[in-house]
Amino acid sequence: MFYLAYFFGMEIVLLSVNKVKNQNLKSLIDEYDKRIRHYIKFSHINISNIKNSKKSPLDHINSEAILIKKEIKKGDLCILLDEKGDLLDSKKFSEFLNKTYNTNYKRIVFIIGGSYGFSESIYLLNFKKISLSKMTFTHQMTKLFFCEQLYRAHTILKNEKYHH
Amino acid sequence: MFYLAYFFGMEIVLLSVNKVKNQNLKSLIDEYDKRIRHYIKFSHINISNIKNSKKSPLDHINSEAILIKKEIKKGDLCILLDEKGDLLDSKKFSEFLNKTYNTNYKRIVFIIGGSYGFSESIYLLNFKKISLSKMTFTHQMTKLFFCEQLYRAHTILKNEKYHH
Repeated sequence: MFYLAYFFGMEIVLLSVNKVKNQNLKSLIDEYDKRIRHYIKFSHINISNIKNSKKSPLDHINSEAILIKKEIKKGDLCILLDEKGDLLDSKKFSEFLNKTYNTNYKRIVFIIGGSYGFSESIYLLNFKKISLSKMTFTHQMTKLFFCEQLYRAHTILKNEKYHH
Repeated sequence: MFYLAYFFGMEIVLLSVNKVKNQNLKSLIDEYDKRIRHYIKFSHINISNIKNSKKSPLDHINSEAILIKKEIKKGDLCILLDEKGDLLDSKKFSEFLNKTYNTNYKRIVFIIGGSYGFSESIYLLNFKKISLSKMTFTHQMTKLFFCEQLYRAHTILKNEKYHH
């Protein structure tokens, strides 16, 4: 059943507000991206950074919300990576993915917020929320954690040894 | 109260079984190490890798347990970074550290196990257990997560803005 996702062209997107600037982090993420793409179509979307630092946090997340919504298409399953989300272990996360691969969604869009989190207007969309940890990490680091887990999930589903 | 730790020479040690080999990960950890040392004495101890790959997982963790115990000294507070541990958020972790800084321990030794986890003989020592996430990460990546949280904890305690 697992291969259906690939055959039907399901895609995973990691949508986030900020680009990863740290080169070491970027290289680590690139490495996981490559590995993930052995299993599934996967891409990053970085929405344009809100430059105006004079903006209040509220204005910030509201502007971000508009840009996030612009990227969402019909046929997307959207999931917020959010501290308030469900705490899954790696196996449960892989099971969740597998279940979703057997649906009619075209894309699974995981969304990482900016430094100030998500605006109320995003929460009102009632997307599923998943938390990688109760601990707070920079959103750049969250990308690395997420990509590692996405890769790990596929090795679990395919019953493969994790490649270090 | 927070500064007491530094004045009394308390030290934090991250004791782990494997060296970080990936250069990008290593650079990221080095960067956090530097930042952590602005606040507290901090060092890594990597116990010699158990080379014999013909060993069973049980033999592996038993050999590792012997080496781990060798590093533990009188006056240490030992804490296992373990999936079965308490899930703290970043603020709670910083509060835990602060509380510990006001004790007579000489070192706080955080211990990361190898690929096969910890042996029963380590669990029998009844060390406190903290979990960074319900998700499983490579132990090399766990070091990065831990160092980031250790740095973040001190910025929380000193009420400083997180330096990106």
